[in-house]
Formats: sequence, structure tokens, C-alpha cells
Amino acid sequence: MHKQKGANAERELIALFWKSGWAAHRIAGSGSSRFPSPDIIAGNFSKKLAIECKSTKAKAQYITKEQAEGLKKFSEIFGAEPWVGVRFSNKEWYFMPLKDIKQTENQNLVIKLEDAKLMGLKFNELLGEFP
Amino acid sequence: MHKQKGANAERELIALFWKSGWAAHRIAGSGSSRFPSPDIIAGNFSKKLAIECKSTKAKAQYITKEQAEGLKKFSEIFGAEPWVGVRFSNKEWYFMPLKDIKQTENQNLVIKLEDAKLMGLKFNELLGEFP
Repeated sequence: MHKQKGANAERELIALFWKSGWAAHRIAGSGSSRFPSPDIIAGNFSKKLAIECKSTKAKAQYITKEQAEGLKKFSEIFGAEPWVGVRFSNKEWYFMPLKDIKQTENQNLVIKLEDAKLMGLKFNELLGEFP
Repeated sequence: MHKQKGANAERELIALFWKSGWAAHRIAGSGSSRFPSPDIIAGNFSKKLAIECKSTKAKAQYITKEQAEGLKKFSEIFGAEPWVGVRFSNKEWYFMPLKDIKQTENQNLVIKLEDAKLMGLKFNELLGEFP
């Protein structure tokens, strides 16, 4: 159920990219691949984004140290910017650059709803479209 | 059976990229997505490749007009070079730039084994490593 909801949120995000003139797709077997992988790769002529996607009913979203390292490693090798996108319940997508996300004591990462609202980029801002 | 063989060939190709210092992944739902899609996306810091992968026991591999158009469209929007990789039985991978592949009378594309041997790039050549 939660997995299905996450998949729907990802599909919706991918459709948003195409609608905005970008190309985007889910990576096959993301999370289970033997090679580091984001959930989504998006790009246009000049920019490539590697995105780890999360959706949650909680007020904070955690990213494990391993997931963060995988996203960083893929992005460095592929040549993409590493981002985390979070869809909190009844909110729009917020995007945080991986390097700006707070670490917990055990080196996992956490994005609190209040921080996402304050510092996260909305979708159109992620695309560099500042209204 | 044939599909499984194709998937194995793709996995093997992806592992080759990683071994060579490139990042590569299969695109989820490639071929069934509502958006144009290659089978594999590969990249390093300076270059991105969108690859349609085929494996065949025949002496010629066809690519439908629709597949070719999807590969071209994705590549233009995403910002990647469009390539077709073919694995003929008991041969190594050969790669052809989409624009150099011959058209059949009905506008599908065809890569003959003899043309692949003559004009196709081998894997290390695709990566720009000319020995």
C-alpha cells in the first residue's frame, strides 16, 4: 500500500517533468540494483538530475546513510546533480540538494516538513523557473 | 526465453559500463512507458548515451520506426546521444549511432551483421577508448 502510493507519486512527478519539456524516467530495480542508483533520472539539454523520491504521512522523512551514499556516488559518476524529493501528505513536492540535508547522530539524513517548506525548492524552482 | 536472454545481455552490458568507470542503468518499463524511452541510459561526467539494446540469433536486427522515433525523441529532450546496441549470437556488442542505421522500405531500421562488423563500434570504442 505504502509502496504503491510511492510509485504513484513517482509516476506523477515523471509526468510533470515531461509536461515541462524535460525527459524523466524511473530507474529499473532502483534500491535493489547491485550498482548505486537514484529512483528517477531527469534531464534536459543542459542539466541532469538524479532524484531519490520519498513520500510520507509523517512530519519528517529519513534517508539512510547507504541511500545517501548511493545517490552521491551515482551522481558523481554519471554526471548529475543529486537531489532528494519529498512528498509530505497533502503538500506539493519539495526538493533538497543532497549536500544541504541535515544528518542525524547516526549519519542518516532527515528532512523535516518545516525545513522542506523553508529551504526546499518547489518543482518549478527545481527546473530553474522562478515565477 | 528470448526476453530473458535479452535481459541478461542488458545486465551484462550495464556491468561493463560500471567496470569501465561509467554509470549505467536500465530504464523501468522501457518499451511500455507512455513516454519515449531507451532501454539503457549510461553516462560519465562529459557524455550521456541513450541505448536501445537488441540481441538476436538472426543475421539482421530490425528496429521499428516507432522505437527509432522514441529513442530519437528521448535523446533530444534528455540531452543524450542515441545509439542502438546489438548482440548477435556468439559475437560481442556492436553499437551504431541511430542516424547511421539503414532504413528499410517501410521506414523501419535494419542492422545487418555484416554492416555491424564493418561500421559498428565495439564497446571500448563506444566509450572513446581506442586501443
